[in-house]
Amino acid sequence: MSKNPRIGIILEPWESDSFLPEPVMAEFYRLSDSIHLVASSRFPDGEGLTGWLQEIRPEILVTGWTTPRLPEDLTSEVPDLRYVCHLVGSVRSTIPERLIGEGLLITNWGHSIARTVAECALMLAIAGLRGASYWTLEMHCRGGWKDRTTTVTGSLFGRKVGIHGFGGISQELRKLLVPFGVPVMTYSPSVPDKLLEEFDVTRAESLEELFSQNDVIVELAALTPKTRGMVNEELLRSIPRGGIFVNVGRGAVVDEEALARVARDGHIQVALDVYAEEPLPEDSPFRHLDHVLTLPHLAGPTVDRRQDAAWHGLENIRRYLRGEPLQSRITPEVSRRIS
Amino acid sequence: MSKNPRIGIILEPWESDSFLPEPVMAEFYRLSDSIHLVASSRFPDGEGLTGWLQEIRPEILVTGWTTPRLPEDLTSEVPDLRYVCHLVGSVRSTIPERLIGEGLLITNWGHSIARTVAECALMLAIAGLRGASYWTLEMHCRGGWKDRTTTVTGSLFGRKVGIHGFGGISQELRKLLVPFGVPVMTYSPSVPDKLLEEFDVTRAESLEELFSQNDVIVELAALTPKTRGMVNEELLRSIPRGGIFVNVGRGAVVDEEALARVARDGHIQVALDVYAEEPLPEDSPFRHLDHVLTLPHLAGPTVDRRQDAAWHGLENIRRYLRGEPLQSRITPEVSRRIS
Repeated sequence: MSKNPRIGIILEPWESDSFLPEPVMAEFYRLSDSIHLVASSRFPDGEGLTGWLQEIRPEILVTGWTTPRLPEDLTSEVPDLRYVCHLVGSVRSTIPERLIGEGLLITNWGHSIARTVAECALMLAIAGLRGASYWTLEMHCRGGWKDRTTTVTGSLFGRKVGIHGFGGISQELRKLLVPFGVPVMTYSPSVPDKLLEEFDVTRAESLEELFSQNDVIVELAALTPKTRGMVNEELLRSIPRGGIFVNVGRGAVVDEEALARVARDGHIQVALDVYAEEPLPEDSPFRHLDHVLTLPHLAGPTVDRRQDAAWHGLENIRRYLRGEPLQSRITPEVSRRIS
Repeated sequence: MSKNPRIGIILEPWESDSFLPEPVMAEFYRLSDSIHLVASSRFPDGEGLTGWLQEIRPEILVTGWTTPRLPEDLTSEVPDLRYVCHLVGSVRSTIPERLIGEGLLITNWGHSIARTVAECALMLAIAGLRGASYWTLEMHCRGGWKDRTTTVTGSLFGRKVGIHGFGGISQELRKLLVPFGVPVMTYSPSVPDKLLEEFDVTRAESLEELFSQNDVIVELAALTPKTRGMVNEELLRSIPRGGIFVNVGRGAVVDEEALARVARDGHIQVALDVYAEEPLPEDSPFRHLDHVLTLPHLAGPTVDRRQDAAWHGLENIRRYLRGEPLQSRITPEVSRRIS
């Protein structure tokens, strides 16, 4: 750990433009005058990367979506390296499993982008209840207009909200729901009572209870072997008529064929940002159901808030330099759990 | 004023179904056992209405969107009538100007539906910044998917919000913005400092200041001779790049031709629920600009919250029966101001 650490940053220009705008870079230069920024595309298929690293000898490496996969023998080839500050989420395509077990410090964006995903979930719930997808298509493609006697619209006010999973995004969503005065329930077995109390959230004893007792369901469970396909047709059909199912978590947690059937029946609204297969195949029924609101996995972070992940990384670098524990560490245990 | 007043309700069935669901009707029957509900369509062009009123002799009349225009000589023909509880907004097509000046008590839905409009404004701001209209059309009509390197999305976090007008809807919107932690400014010359302090809102000294110093602009000014066309091209072009203009107020406050030009340039997002001419003409440019989010004037109230207007009316009927002042009264002065 040094006062003026050598820092390597490997990102494409479009990536550094959004993650590291000028105020963020100014902070980096306050920490070190030995910062080496290189474009990921300089290392096609990783070629030349080890050589560059041996030349720069970074103590801290900042990585992102485009950074080539780091070499398996990184720690022996670049012995000064102590900390890989991964600015984005999944480390799988960037950092070999072996390095995670070798005592190298590794962090990711943690919960720093959670609020933008929560914001998107809130928007999808309100927009879905209003029929925004149907009305966008009607207004733009079919010259449509509402009919006061038959058009059905719904509000978030007066509803009961059920959230599947209670991690960082759910916690941010709970905050955004406060002014709506809606009761919030969650099914998240591993979350302690104390946290639910702190956020004024009731515990559902089962997924069945969550889906049948709330009319706005937000899917935010992590994808694990246990949760894959867990949201089945019976659960989806138990959502009270006039309700909505929003997915901003992981597509594969849901039986999508069942979801398409339920959406087609029209008893509930459906709003989706994520899908089991991405990009969403052209023949997906969700593309052809006018009232299913679909976004192309852009809940978070928005481009203008990518810098939040960099501020989070910077804070971790400061902690590293002060010898303090880091946030959002990727340990072997964490890596096993989320992969 | 009597303990068991005769109450007449003139609404179409689809209207009474949504405004007066069972729990609301139960409350009406708690106030009186002399309630007469009749379908508006029984009086085509108002024919037969006076006869029905003379037969029922209501002390209180409950009216809505479909209620035929009340006769000019209502107070002499139905001398027992004291109070017209109009469940919706504008009274112009239902209640002749002359009656408003005659000492008849008249109320409308007041601010009871403001929160649903505010919710829609919040949704439009978030959805607009995400490009939801463009992505709905891309996903449903063109088999599209995002491109991480070029797709631009924005968040409400980190923005500055400017609201034109600070009436009931703006006040509800301000509450919904609290968890976003965004500073809020308003241009609303007639609103006292005390109210702005209470809501933690800064005053803009001019519309120029409001538009140029905030990047999320929400249009909620009342339509008056002074505000008609007030939002011109210069103001719209002064919104900082990457911002958004949301209109959930009145379409004619905006120079729509200028707005279409500004929207076409793409420096800001645009999300609209209201238009100078409604239904929006088929050849309106807003229908043909993919990134302009358009709804068909459905911000409020949603069908499931029309009952809020009825609960508000019921509270007024209770106040009337107790001899207390009514809320949301339509006096000659109010009528002149909003017409």
